[in-house]
Amino acid sequence: MKLVTFRPADSAGTERRVGVVDSERRIVHDATVLLPPGTGMPELIEGWEELGPVLRDAAGDQPTLSLDSVELLAPIPVPRRDLFCVGKNYRDHAVEFGRSGYDTPARSEDLPDKPIIFSKATTSVTGPGADIDPHAGVTAELDYEGELCVIIGRGGRGISRERAFDHVWGYTIVNDVTARDLQRDHKQWLLGKSLDTHCPMGPYAVTADEITDVTALRVETTVNGEPRQSAPVKDLIFDVPELIATISAGITLLPGDLIATGTPAGVGIGFDPPRFLATGDVVEVTITGLGTLRNRVG
Amino acid sequence: MKLVTFRPADSAGTERRVGVVDSERRIVHDATVLLPPGTGMPELIEGWEELGPVLRDAAGDQPTLSLDSVELLAPIPVPRRDLFCVGKNYRDHAVEFGRSGYDTPARSEDLPDKPIIFSKATTSVTGPGADIDPHAGVTAELDYEGELCVIIGRGGRGISRERAFDHVWGYTIVNDVTARDLQRDHKQWLLGKSLDTHCPMGPYAVTADEITDVTALRVETTVNGEPRQSAPVKDLIFDVPELIATISAGITLLPGDLIATGTPAGVGIGFDPPRFLATGDVVEVTITGLGTLRNRVG
Repeated sequence: MKLVTFRPADSAGTERRVGVVDSERRIVHDATVLLPPGTGMPELIEGWEELGPVLRDAAGDQPTLSLDSVELLAPIPVPRRDLFCVGKNYRDHAVEFGRSGYDTPARSEDLPDKPIIFSKATTSVTGPGADIDPHAGVTAELDYEGELCVIIGRGGRGISRERAFDHVWGYTIVNDVTARDLQRDHKQWLLGKSLDTHCPMGPYAVTADEITDVTALRVETTVNGEPRQSAPVKDLIFDVPELIATISAGITLLPGDLIATGTPAGVGIGFDPPRFLATGDVVEVTITGLGTLRNRVG
Repeated sequence: MKLVTFRPADSAGTERRVGVVDSERRIVHDATVLLPPGTGMPELIEGWEELGPVLRDAAGDQPTLSLDSVELLAPIPVPRRDLFCVGKNYRDHAVEFGRSGYDTPARSEDLPDKPIIFSKATTSVTGPGADIDPHAGVTAELDYEGELCVIIGRGGRGISRERAFDHVWGYTIVNDVTARDLQRDHKQWLLGKSLDTHCPMGPYAVTADEITDVTALRVETTVNGEPRQSAPVKDLIFDVPELIATISAGITLLPGDLIATGTPAGVGIGFDPPRFLATGDVVEVTITGLGTLRNRVG
């Protein structure tokens, strides 16, 4: 199932609804009346065991809107906490990042021995189609990072590699937009990763049953139509089960938690000289089966 | 005003109430009936302009409980997102940390040019008096960090140094408990800082009007009664206004956001050999006017 959080064309400012998408017919079924009042995606994921079957059975009978007539928001517009993110998790990207000099203080092309985990603040999340704020005056080195993002379903601590997929509700796409100067100058990455609108997410939250083999998915990023990143998820240094096991070893994962799994080679600082984003640039991240996340810098 | 989140001695498992404390008389006034249903500290802080005066006028007339009869929880038991934290923000601690070899990859005693900002996951928060889980098998190098924590009231972005205190609702104490091996081995600090129960907080949330000059406060930490840390807040390299201005330059701060301002010299890895915490150790962090945060490792 492909789920969206959306705002009808005729709705007032802050209304958010959950819908079930038929991406081939480009329609969305408004699931509002099927869910308890106030149910957004976090509550839906938490109550999925009960609510998932309701949507499966009845969403197709609900009011139908054209996907092009609604405003899609991030599938989880306000996460219950910051996103977990993974750094240097594709071999070629670890090398390009080390070589760039932005991985202070050491300029190292070594691959990480253990997952590098950092976070993006909740307020950085924005929708598919929304503009990426360039934050002129705050950063002069805006970069993109297309990534597969895991959505946790059942929470838990001490989750084993073997059990990890039992805790995956589904997947979405994020663009882990990065202010490289802040990332470098502040040493820890939170600030450089968390500027408002610097976490475009979507377009869909896709349930895990639609993805037979997550390692077979391919992450592709273009800037103004020019191919920049392309790698299969099987190239991850630390795979999805390993990330879930590592994070949950001492941290209780919660339903709706988000884990951005890292970006492949081909980011702006992978070029010499670096190719940073500028106002008007359009970044598109496409992942097999998950759709395309398209955002303009502006 | 000193506010607490508490659970009455006779209450069922998950009930949480907000109370106003008279710390000299060691009593708490149960403010439940004065607040809209479901109001916890995050909602109270967000609605402070309206609700603060209600508490000021009427809390003293509410049911009185002995402070020793109730279970104090963290003032903000479930923050709306991860805590913002600051690394190496006292001169002598920056030197001891650099010298320790835990600040990989470079062993540097240099002071930071810009604030080092990282986060602690929401699920690390625990109450005053609660046990710190040593997470045997996950970490073997448990350390303490006593810190002043700023509680944001009015949110905003682009907050200037001059206006910063207009956005401070108040203060509390946190112990930024750290798994040093994870902090070092995973390069970015999130994992090493975020194990469950590794953010003891409290005992009170103290409104800013009780603190005439935050720089005059003193942060003191003892382990089993032995003094370990002692420094005035005026020793911060990046002071409270600078931290608020830096974070909010590109990140919208929200009511209830928490900023742990950094720890003074005297942590376990400041000793040679390091003095890590062990089961049974009692850590007490005291800050002028904010009380004492006491937790046992167990």
